[in-house]
Amino acid sequence: MAKEITPRSDDYSQWYLDIVRKAQLADNSPVRGCMVIRPTGFAIWEKMRDRLDSEFKRTGHVNAYFPLFIPKSFLSREAEHVEGFAKECAVVTHSRLKTDPVNGGLMVDPEAKLEEELIVRPTSETIIWNTYKDWIQSYRDLPILINQWANVVRWEMRTRPFLRTTEFLWQEGHTAHSSQEEAVRETRMILDIYADFAESYMAMPVIKGLKTANERFAGAIDTYCIEALVQDGKSIQAGTSHFLGQNFARAFDVNFLNESNKQELVWATSWGVSTRLVGGLIMTHSDDEGLVLPPKLAPLQVVIIPVPKPEAAINEVAEKLSRELIAKGITVKYDIDEKSRPGFKYAEYEMKGIPVRVAIGQRDLEKGVAEVARRDTREKEFIPLDGLGAHVEKLMTDIQDNLLLKALRFRQENTREANDFATFSDILENKAGFVSAHWDGTTETELKIKELTKATIRCIPLDQQKEEGTCILTGKKSEGRVLFAKAY
Amino acid sequence: MAKEITPRSDDYSQWYLDIVRKAQLADNSPVRGCMVIRPTGFAIWEKMRDRLDSEFKRTGHVNAYFPLFIPKSFLSREAEHVEGFAKECAVVTHSRLKTDPVNGGLMVDPEAKLEEELIVRPTSETIIWNTYKDWIQSYRDLPILINQWANVVRWEMRTRPFLRTTEFLWQEGHTAHSSQEEAVRETRMILDIYADFAESYMAMPVIKGLKTANERFAGAIDTYCIEALVQDGKSIQAGTSHFLGQNFARAFDVNFLNESNKQELVWATSWGVSTRLVGGLIMTHSDDEGLVLPPKLAPLQVVIIPVPKPEAAINEVAEKLSRELIAKGITVKYDIDEKSRPGFKYAEYEMKGIPVRVAIGQRDLEKGVAEVARRDTREKEFIPLDGLGAHVEKLMTDIQDNLLLKALRFRQENTREANDFATFSDILENKAGFVSAHWDGTTETELKIKELTKATIRCIPLDQQKEEGTCILTGKKSEGRVLFAKAY
Repeated sequence: MAKEITPRSDDYSQWYLDIVRKAQLADNSPVRGCMVIRPTGFAIWEKMRDRLDSEFKRTGHVNAYFPLFIPKSFLSREAEHVEGFAKECAVVTHSRLKTDPVNGGLMVDPEAKLEEELIVRPTSETIIWNTYKDWIQSYRDLPILINQWANVVRWEMRTRPFLRTTEFLWQEGHTAHSSQEEAVRETRMILDIYADFAESYMAMPVIKGLKTANERFAGAIDTYCIEALVQDGKSIQAGTSHFLGQNFARAFDVNFLNESNKQELVWATSWGVSTRLVGGLIMTHSDDEGLVLPPKLAPLQVVIIPVPKPEAAINEVAEKLSRELIAKGITVKYDIDEKSRPGFKYAEYEMKGIPVRVAIGQRDLEKGVAEVARRDTREKEFIPLDGLGAHVEKLMTDIQDNLLLKALRFRQENTREANDFATFSDILENKAGFVSAHWDGTTETELKIKELTKATIRCIPLDQQKEEGTCILTGKKSEGRVLFAKAY
Repeated sequence: MAKEITPRSDDYSQWYLDIVRKAQLADNSPVRGCMVIRPTGFAIWEKMRDRLDSEFKRTGHVNAYFPLFIPKSFLSREAEHVEGFAKECAVVTHSRLKTDPVNGGLMVDPEAKLEEELIVRPTSETIIWNTYKDWIQSYRDLPILINQWANVVRWEMRTRPFLRTTEFLWQEGHTAHSSQEEAVRETRMILDIYADFAESYMAMPVIKGLKTANERFAGAIDTYCIEALVQDGKSIQAGTSHFLGQNFARAFDVNFLNESNKQELVWATSWGVSTRLVGGLIMTHSDDEGLVLPPKLAPLQVVIIPVPKPEAAINEVAEKLSRELIAKGITVKYDIDEKSRPGFKYAEYEMKGIPVRVAIGQRDLEKGVAEVARRDTREKEFIPLDGLGAHVEKLMTDIQDNLLLKALRFRQENTREANDFATFSDILENKAGFVSAHWDGTTETELKIKELTKATIRCIPLDQQKEEGTCILTGKKSEGRVLFAKAY
C-alpha cells in the first residue's frame, strides 16, 4: 500500500493528495473545486464538531440555522465586507429548468429569472444581522450567542481537498453584545477555545495572534487567529475570531435601548473553523506510510488482528480485549476478514492511521503475550496478555502526548529570528518555517515583502514581548516582532 | 401571551403560524420561502437528528458529505427522476459579481458565466450514484450504507414554516446493494426506524404504507412512507423510504462483479426525513395556549419558578430539585429573573411547551409541598417536597405516554370507512381525517378523485387486510382499501 504514497521529500503536495485519496478521506467531485467527504474523513470532522459544539454550549451558545441564500443587495451594505467577500461566489439567477425543445435535455427557463439574484452564502454576517434587527430592541435582548453549523461557498481558483475547497463545512458563531468590552471578551474566549481544541484534541500546537490590517476579515475591527506550522514549513490559518465592532449593526441598523434608556448600536463578533482543520490535522502528523491520527480524534482507535486468521483461542482473547476497551470508551474493531493476510492488513491500517494495532497469534499466545504496535512511532512491543487492556489504554494518552510534543518540537526547530532581509529571505527560501522579524507596521511594506518572498505576516503573536527594533525591509522603527511564513 | 394565539377553531393555519412565531421556533427570512430556524426550533431538530443518527449508526450506516451543487446534465440522466425533480430549483449560472459601473452596488459579472449551470441539490441521488461508480467494482465493495445530513432546495410556490420551505434540512440515506432482496430489506428496515421514532419519540402515531404510482418518488420502483394525521384532519407525509431498483445504477452505469464473476447492475435505496418533522410535531400536540412538546424531544423539560421571587428557603428547595433532576438526565431551568412576575412566566413557558412547571412558594413550603403543573393536560397538583424529584421524573413518562395515546385516539376517531362516493365526499368535506376506501388501482381514478375532493391516496397501508370490493368512484373491482386524506 504505502508504496503508492509519494514520499514527502519527493513532492509534499502530491504526498498530501495521496494520503487524502488512499486513506479514503475525500474524493474529487464532478463539480469544480468541490469534494466528496468520504465516511472516514467525515467521521473525523464529526468528532471535531461534537467536541467544539459541546465547548460552545458549555460557554452559553446555542445553535440556529439561517438561509443558504443571501440577496445580492445585502452584500453591498457593509462597505469593506463587500470588497473582501462579494466577488467570487455562486450566483443563483433562475428558479426553474425546462426541457430544451431543440436538443432535449434541460435548459434554464428564461421566464424564471429572479428579480434579485441570490448569492450562496460565503459567510453569513449580512443575513444574520438583518435578522438580529428584528430580535434586538433593548439591552434585555442581549447578548445573543448563536452558532451555526453550515456549508458555505467561495469560488476559489486553486483548490486542495479540505484546505481550500469551493464548498466547505464550518461553524460560524455570530454574537451580539451591549458593550465593546463584552464583545472583545467573547472574541478572545473563542480564540482560547479554538487554541485549546487544536492542542488538546488535534495535538496541533498553534500560535494565537492578531492579523494585520491587510489580512483582517473584511468588515472586522480586529481579527484574531490561530496559526499552525505543518511539515513542509508552511503555515495554516486554522481558525479566526473577529471583533466586528459596530460595523454590521451600522450597516443593518441594529440598535438597542441601553440601561440609560439611550439608543446605541449593537457590538458584534463572528468566529469560525472549518473542514480545513482536517487538512491541518493530516499535514501535521501523517508520514510516508499514510495517515497518522491523534487518538482523541481517531474514529477507530484500536484494531485487533488475528494472526494468521481467527481461531477459537485467538477469538477468545480478542473478544475479551474488545470488551475491556469498549468499557473504557475506546473504539475497537476485531478484523476477522479472511480474504486479506495480516501483512496486508497491517499496511492498510497504517495507511488509515489507526493509532494502535494489536496482533494476536497462536505462538505468542502460548507465551502469554500479544504484539502491540503504535502508529505514531511504528514501535512494536510484546505485551503480557494480563495487562493488555491497561497497556492499550495508556497508549491512547502516550500517543496523543507524543504527537503534540513532536509537533511542538518541529515548530520550535522551525521558528527562527531574522534581523536583516538577507537572512530573512534565506530562511524562507531554504528552510521555510516561521520567521520572527521586525516590520514597520505598514501594509505597503507587508505587500512588498510578500512580493519578494511569497511570505505573509501570519500574525502578531499575542504573547509577543515588547521589543523595539527596525523593519527588516525598510529599516524603519518597529515596536515588536511579527510572525512571517509562507501559508496555505 | 396566549391571547395572541389565534384559536384552532377560528383559523387553523393562522394558529400554526402563531405558534411558530410566538414559541420562537422560526422566523421568516428576506429570501422567499426560506426560514430562519431559531434556537428553540433548532434544538428540537438537533434532538431528532441525534436520535435518528444513532439509530442509523446502530444499523451499520455511516455519514458522508456530497457536494451542494449538481451539474445540470446529471439531472437528465434518470428519465423519471428529471420529470419529478428537475424543474423547480435554484440554478447557479455565474461565479462572480462585480461593482456596477452605472448604479454602484453589485452586478453579476457576465464574463463569469459557467460553462454548465449548477443546480442546488433538490436531492442527491444523481451526484451520489455518479460517485458510487468509482467506489464499486465487486460484490466485496457492497453494501454501501451511507447517510448525509444536509440542506436541500426545492423552489416551492407555497411555503409554510417547517412543513414546506424552499430550503430545508434533512437526512438522505443512499445505499447500494448486491441483491434486490437486500435492498428491499433495507428500505423496510428504515421505514420501521422512522415509524418507531415517530411513535416513541415524537408521540406521533403513523401509518406505514406504500405510495401509489402517482405519488411515488421520481425514479423509485416503490416508495414506502409514514403518514401522520394532525388536528385539522389533514395528513402529513412524515418520511419516505424508496426502493430504487437498478434505475440509478443504470443511469450512472454502476456495475459490480458478482460472486459468480458476472457484471450486474447495483441495487439502490434512498430514504429521508426532514425539518418537516418539526412541523408535524407542532401540529400533532400543540393547543390554543401554545406549543406542546413530548418530553423526549423537549430541549428544556422542566422549569422551576420561585413564587413570587427567589428567597433563601425557596432557592434551597429549587436547587436541590435541580440537582436531583439533572442527575436523572432531565434538563431543568430555575428561572430567577425578577423582571417578570410568576403569572407572566407561567404563560410564557406554556407558550413554549415546557412539559413540566414546578412553582415553589413560601406558603406552600410551610405545608411541605410545591405546585406541579403538566403542560399536556394543564393539570396542577400539590406534591410533597419529599417525593418531588421522583414525581417529576414519572411525569416525563406519563406525559410522553399520554400524548401518544391522545394522538392515537384522535386518529382512531378520525379514520372512517366509506363504501360509496357520497359518504366519501361527505366525510372529506365535513369531517376530514383518513378515509379508508376501495379504489380501482388506476392513476386516472386517483386523479379524478383528487379533482373532485382534493383528497389524495396517502398510502396503501402495509397492514391492510385483503378485502375485495368495488372502487368508490368507478365501481370497478378493487383488491383492498387504501387511505385517502387531504394532505399538507
